[in-house]
Amino acid sequence: MGLIVQKFGGTSVGSVEKIRNAAERAIAEKRKGNNVIVVVSAMGKTTDKLVEMAGDLTAAPAKREMDMLLSTGEQVTISLFALALKQHGIEAVSYTGWQAGIVTEAVHGNARIIEIRTEKISRDLAAGKVVVAAGFQGITEQGEITTLGRGGSDTTAVALAAALHADKCEIFTDVTGVFTTDPRYVKSARKLLSVSYDEMLELANLGAGVLHPRAVEYAKNYGVPLEVRSSMEQEAGTMIGEDNRMEQSLVVRGIAFEDQITRISVIGLEDSINSLPAIFSLLAENHINVDIIIQSRTERNHAAISFSIKSPNLEETLSVLEKNKEAIGCRSIEAETSLAKVSIVGAGMISNPGVAAKMFEVLAGSGIMVKMVSTSEIKVSAVIDDTNMVKAVETLHSAFGLSEQSVGQH
Amino acid sequence: MGLIVQKFGGTSVGSVEKIRNAAERAIAEKRKGNNVIVVVSAMGKTTDKLVEMAGDLTAAPAKREMDMLLSTGEQVTISLFALALKQHGIEAVSYTGWQAGIVTEAVHGNARIIEIRTEKISRDLAAGKVVVAAGFQGITEQGEITTLGRGGSDTTAVALAAALHADKCEIFTDVTGVFTTDPRYVKSARKLLSVSYDEMLELANLGAGVLHPRAVEYAKNYGVPLEVRSSMEQEAGTMIGEDNRMEQSLVVRGIAFEDQITRISVIGLEDSINSLPAIFSLLAENHINVDIIIQSRTERNHAAISFSIKSPNLEETLSVLEKNKEAIGCRSIEAETSLAKVSIVGAGMISNPGVAAKMFEVLAGSGIMVKMVSTSEIKVSAVIDDTNMVKAVETLHSAFGLSEQSVGQH
Repeated sequence: MGLIVQKFGGTSVGSVEKIRNAAERAIAEKRKGNNVIVVVSAMGKTTDKLVEMAGDLTAAPAKREMDMLLSTGEQVTISLFALALKQHGIEAVSYTGWQAGIVTEAVHGNARIIEIRTEKISRDLAAGKVVVAAGFQGITEQGEITTLGRGGSDTTAVALAAALHADKCEIFTDVTGVFTTDPRYVKSARKLLSVSYDEMLELANLGAGVLHPRAVEYAKNYGVPLEVRSSMEQEAGTMIGEDNRMEQSLVVRGIAFEDQITRISVIGLEDSINSLPAIFSLLAENHINVDIIIQSRTERNHAAISFSIKSPNLEETLSVLEKNKEAIGCRSIEAETSLAKVSIVGAGMISNPGVAAKMFEVLAGSGIMVKMVSTSEIKVSAVIDDTNMVKAVETLHSAFGLSEQSVGQH
Repeated sequence: MGLIVQKFGGTSVGSVEKIRNAAERAIAEKRKGNNVIVVVSAMGKTTDKLVEMAGDLTAAPAKREMDMLLSTGEQVTISLFALALKQHGIEAVSYTGWQAGIVTEAVHGNARIIEIRTEKISRDLAAGKVVVAAGFQGITEQGEITTLGRGGSDTTAVALAAALHADKCEIFTDVTGVFTTDPRYVKSARKLLSVSYDEMLELANLGAGVLHPRAVEYAKNYGVPLEVRSSMEQEAGTMIGEDNRMEQSLVVRGIAFEDQITRISVIGLEDSINSLPAIFSLLAENHINVDIIIQSRTERNHAAISFSIKSPNLEETLSVLEKNKEAIGCRSIEAETSLAKVSIVGAGMISNPGVAAKMFEVLAGSGIMVKMVSTSEIKVSAVIDDTNMVKAVETLHSAFGLSEQSVGQH
């Protein structure tokens, strides 16, 4: 007899009917002879509605009160989910975050879990009960309700799986798994049967938030096997675990991409040693995230720095830099918008030095100019014109053998 | 500096706008220099919606899970209320039932408060904060969420007021106070400036649940001064406290009434000693509430028993009695429907033996036949045809001097 943790997100429990369907997944697992812990999010648009009400009262709601408010969302779901299980004769008990022993640091809105007190849940599982726990929320040592921020319910599920040594943590969502690339753009995209934690982290933005990176990191640290699968379809999903593939398996496992990228160039830096920290401290202070950074020497030993940002941050970025032009000590600031980033991801490329070269070759062969490049041990990213994005993804998907029948088999 | 507990019911916090208005009442009290505890119910129809969702999942929802579900209602209100206070620069903190230290017995759906752990709230009040507590809910010693059943938020408010020795517990509602009779029926009905706890208990059904009898009893036991007042109007409400009126004050303080009364007569009882317990045990087992009971001897020493019930219980009552006719040992069972009960209420009537006589005289003078009578130390009730109900109330209201300017002044 094993222990399975099943996590259902907001869309998977968006109505009473969907809760009933989700409950059937838990019942099926229970009837196989496994112990089951269910972790749920707030129903559908509940959180948005609560945020809206708070917004009608005040422009800057206190985070403590927002945690108090939003944590009601999952509490509604756990009780309804438990009722759905009991209606089928399954012994079930619902727990809020504080009842489930999810202890967090004393931070509101984005708390990290510091401890899980598992006595209560262990006792219930031993008594044959299905435990239905509220995701996304916890309690401080002082008895204050906290929430875990974005991806919080995924993190709750993984943390419970880790603390109770579950055999698997299943993340039910509205897609059937993790794909080689986004099937909404590339028809030949195929579902992967397995990926490693690291690959999953790099592919995180495929399929619009299938699994929060924070939860993947948690799972990696504690060695929790994950499965991303559909709450509507019965088919197996994608397993996420340690990388244990054979040499012959695919070097590139997936292709991630995003548009709305802008390149900012700060040109004519007189003193690049001090300019570099000056620029990025300014951006950090203004909470502007920077992705790729490239430094180059141009005319008369004056340096230039280019970096990529998300296009919605363009106006603020330029304003911050222009205001501090003197402190930075540069001649001019330029921006190039309408760019996209395409990344090939695969743990196997660590030992395959030719992968980046092949990528540039493929892009060049399609007449696509690469404007910026960034590499990590398991990823190569290229910034290109956004009009070329889908073409680049399709070409790379095919060139690296991802469109074939064999994908993900090993 | 005093301590005021303010309780706002579901209609008084039915929208963000209404929460903002209610918050202004708390702010006004705080700015007078008082400490303030606010107790709130779930917003408007929230509870109904939650009950409906549970009903869609199962016909017999587990009470533990219903408590888990329904307690989210007040949790939403406390956080929004605290945000509304903070928006005005008032230091405020919201607490769920368990955070407020409301410990109840281990019963779901209708728990009684057994203890209030006031350390946290006392500390917050001392620090100048307004405490916003969730009504209707508590926690067992085992950490299970409970609810207090009907009138629960009133009870929470009174219990907090008692535990923290508040100077007053204000119950804000959608009427301006307790009236001599229901102003929807009798135009000359007047607001009472004060009534005693006992009178309030007897007048409880005036104005459709202004204040739950359970909360009144709690207030009486702990000597908590109550004020029932409007959440919309600024005028003073009705004070409820110990009876401390002078001899010359009004004997009758109010007139309560209700229709939908049915009289059941069990006739020709052979053995009335055993029939009496047999009948009422049967009814109690079937959860049928009986109000007035009259036993009489009729022909040939056979006894008859009449009692009044609410008309919606008629069918079930007859069915229970007919099924057990032999055990009861009676000849026939009769029912008279379309009756009403009119009661005159006043603590002063204990020392005024002529009050009942005057009531019957007044009714007889209006040609209204009395079918059943019941008396207590502070109340006389008469059952009459429901077509005469409003006429009876109006006539009695005038005859006992309730329509005059002086009402409630003492």
